[in-house]
Amino acid sequence: MLANIDLTRTVAKEDFKKAKPELEIKLVTLQRQAIQLKVPILLLFEGWDASGKGSLINDLILPLDPRGFKVHSIPRPTEDEILRPFLWRFWVRTPAQGRIAIFDRGWYWPVWTERVNKDMSRTALERTTHDISSFERQLVDGGTVIIKFLLHISKKEQKRRFKKLLKTKATAWRVTKDDLKRHKQYEKYLNVMEQSLAQTDTNYAPWTIIEAHDRRFALLKMYHTVIHRLEEHFKNIEQRKASPATATRIVTTPASLIPSILDKVDLSLAVERDTYRKELEEGQDRIRELEHEMYVKRVPAVLAYEGWDAAGKGGTLRRLVQRMDPRGYEVVPVAAPSDEEKAHHYLWRFWRQMPKAGHMAIFDRSWYGRVLVERVEGFCSEIEWRRAFSEINEMEEHMANFGTVILKFWLHIDQNEQLRRFKEREKIEYKRWKITEEDWRNRKKWDVYMEAVNEMIYRTSTPYAPWVIVESNNKQYARLKVVRTVVKALEKALKK
Amino acid sequence: MLANIDLTRTVAKEDFKKAKPELEIKLVTLQRQAIQLKVPILLLFEGWDASGKGSLINDLILPLDPRGFKVHSIPRPTEDEILRPFLWRFWVRTPAQGRIAIFDRGWYWPVWTERVNKDMSRTALERTTHDISSFERQLVDGGTVIIKFLLHISKKEQKRRFKKLLKTKATAWRVTKDDLKRHKQYEKYLNVMEQSLAQTDTNYAPWTIIEAHDRRFALLKMYHTVIHRLEEHFKNIEQRKASPATATRIVTTPASLIPSILDKVDLSLAVERDTYRKELEEGQDRIRELEHEMYVKRVPAVLAYEGWDAAGKGGTLRRLVQRMDPRGYEVVPVAAPSDEEKAHHYLWRFWRQMPKAGHMAIFDRSWYGRVLVERVEGFCSEIEWRRAFSEINEMEEHMANFGTVILKFWLHIDQNEQLRRFKEREKIEYKRWKITEEDWRNRKKWDVYMEAVNEMIYRTSTPYAPWVIVESNNKQYARLKVVRTVVKALEKALKK
Repeated sequence: MLANIDLTRTVAKEDFKKAKPELEIKLVTLQRQAIQLKVPILLLFEGWDASGKGSLINDLILPLDPRGFKVHSIPRPTEDEILRPFLWRFWVRTPAQGRIAIFDRGWYWPVWTERVNKDMSRTALERTTHDISSFERQLVDGGTVIIKFLLHISKKEQKRRFKKLLKTKATAWRVTKDDLKRHKQYEKYLNVMEQSLAQTDTNYAPWTIIEAHDRRFALLKMYHTVIHRLEEHFKNIEQRKASPATATRIVTTPASLIPSILDKVDLSLAVERDTYRKELEEGQDRIRELEHEMYVKRVPAVLAYEGWDAAGKGGTLRRLVQRMDPRGYEVVPVAAPSDEEKAHHYLWRFWRQMPKAGHMAIFDRSWYGRVLVERVEGFCSEIEWRRAFSEINEMEEHMANFGTVILKFWLHIDQNEQLRRFKEREKIEYKRWKITEEDWRNRKKWDVYMEAVNEMIYRTSTPYAPWVIVESNNKQYARLKVVRTVVKALEKALKK
Repeated sequence: MLANIDLTRTVAKEDFKKAKPELEIKLVTLQRQAIQLKVPILLLFEGWDASGKGSLINDLILPLDPRGFKVHSIPRPTEDEILRPFLWRFWVRTPAQGRIAIFDRGWYWPVWTERVNKDMSRTALERTTHDISSFERQLVDGGTVIIKFLLHISKKEQKRRFKKLLKTKATAWRVTKDDLKRHKQYEKYLNVMEQSLAQTDTNYAPWTIIEAHDRRFALLKMYHTVIHRLEEHFKNIEQRKASPATATRIVTTPASLIPSILDKVDLSLAVERDTYRKELEEGQDRIRELEHEMYVKRVPAVLAYEGWDAAGKGGTLRRLVQRMDPRGYEVVPVAAPSDEEKAHHYLWRFWRQMPKAGHMAIFDRSWYGRVLVERVEGFCSEIEWRRAFSEINEMEEHMANFGTVILKFWLHIDQNEQLRRFKEREKIEYKRWKITEEDWRNRKKWDVYMEAVNEMIYRTSTPYAPWVIVESNNKQYARLKVVRTVVKALEKALKK
């Protein structure tokens, strides 16, 4: 969830000043409603050192009725708390009905830290993750709204902030040795956090990543998130009163609250003909070697290609396999499901095609159809495609734990480039079959697809199955990037 | 779930003959309905060797339309399947809409076997349990009905069956070396199975234990279970059509399908005065020693007392702590929740009282009120108390993983004994305060409570937090049993 996202988003001072008062009034009104409806609210703030947690929490609570909330700052357990089971100190601080409990770091940070420092075994980690999920699910089942924030800044930004603090004596004390030690471990933390976020980004207690470089942007996003979640929850309560069946507890997220990923993709990237030819051939030869090694060591691999129409999936795929041994891989073209496939769970047909150990399966379109075409065209319900994010993460995790190398490519072009390619296809006789009425129809839905793609990459990027965004306005660049990425991933897997 | 249950239940031949035809017709009708409604059905049979799985499956499918089901017998993976992730061979065999897939052993047996033989690390076990839950949840979310049976026989019965098979040449080949090896590992399997059942007895895919000593009893229970589950599911589908909100997927279980536990309790158990005095004092002294050791080794303990009114909770508790050091334990009397407690999650007030490492907390009544008085009196909804079983198991598991010794006592008496004690209390002035109008009211609900207690003990008996049924018609026997049980449990914990 942290990979690829655009951390540079900002809000101008005037816009901020204009927006804030209204949001504050809304928040206060919602707090009053929560008291009336007796809803307990739990806000959790996790995030990097120097990400501005403290001051953002202060700004958030300023307009609230102080009798209605409590801030808990529990970075490390007291002596008494060490003598209790891990969750104890959080359970006893859960909010009562109508009250807001704000956790300035909570049950994730200690786990991440222990894991980074290898103070926690894998077994303990699996167990704790399981316990945390139960804890959150039990609270939500009991009526609590849980809003989890992760304040995210880049390593560079963290360094900049530490340096600034260290310059002045009045602030230097705020940067501790531990802070600097953790700064050096940034990548390790990132990895552990990514994995943990994917496992605990549930339908009932999802994470919200706050891009925290710009304070104004961060604060407004926090406001919007809290307001959206509470408004949605209160509406659900009213609906439940109207209908006897308990409503499903699936939290929605408007597109505006999802970090931007595709906007910052640099589509001007290109490669020169000569470099392209040379490096492509070298890469292809290397892939053939690696394919053989994968076979010998019985390591399976799964590659999935997704992308805009005319982004060049076919051509890229062809370059990838050009020199590979066809006995070691299989290309699986994914079209609309057959009748038999429709009669099964939507993941069934993909499970069937998953490669044996030592083999590679290359999917031309994939299970991500659930959250792309099926979402956009309404072939499944909102509940179904929202559920799919965690279902897919679970499937990929199961594969990854078996040792499977998983890579997912999103071939990205812009609207102009697509138009140019469509027109070209229509002109050239032998390419004309490639362009259909449907392509033109899809093109009109560009913005809706854009939202779907953005959320897909955001929610299903994991350390064990990353999305690779392939800048594809320049075809040669795209082909080379795919080949290079595959080489790197296979080499890494074989080193283990 | 396997502890304490009465395995000796039988059905008479005439009753069986009378009941069966009607059930068969119902089943066939439901199969047709499943096809119309396009519902995939998955039946999983796990169980002991020689528990009669094969022949029971045969009997079950006899009346069914053979074009509509398929039996999968997959005791161990093929060479091809070993090269795939664990769940692969089960995923590809999941049923299509309107079809029934029957698994003669499935995704649990290999895990249990590997765990008993220590071929699976704790990490892998935690992971696989997590993967299995995801697998089942995904299928249920996709519309599949999952019915999981565990065919249960005692070690003695298994031995009897093996002996019988070995007597005749025509059947002797059916008993393999592996069977006999596993027979010797019966207790180990039982332990692993208990733990696994508790973790995977979910609201959406619960386990049904089949007492399999008597074939007729087993078969009828299987029929009743399948019929109940399908009828309930189809009714849900219709309700969902009527109301737009998706119905909650909580499977109910009628009392008749829950194994009997309390019926077989031997309330005639008693102890002689002299033995009682001597052993009680010895036990009390030992407990004081153990209390000290627990403190030194920082092992916490949680004891919970539940039982019928006038079963002697107070007296038993007093005898237990009589010689203990009061600094090392705390008695927590549990009454109706205060206003502050009511404003929190129902488990919150118990979490607060959980002991520190090295201390013991003794609860006089406990969190089990949720599935006893709150269930019977309607203080919470059916969805809430059904959910409580797994919530409580999760809480106790978290404590146990922290190293807490957990024991839960059910003080059992019969209705006559209760009446005798009530009357006695009314007669004796200084005991009169102990008996209230409410006690008489509760007494009238004996049968309803009996169902609740039975289900409670059944669903929340785990290896890490067992229920101990204390036969309490004879007070001395009861007190001694509690003291002995505590001594044994603490000694075991300290040996680790």
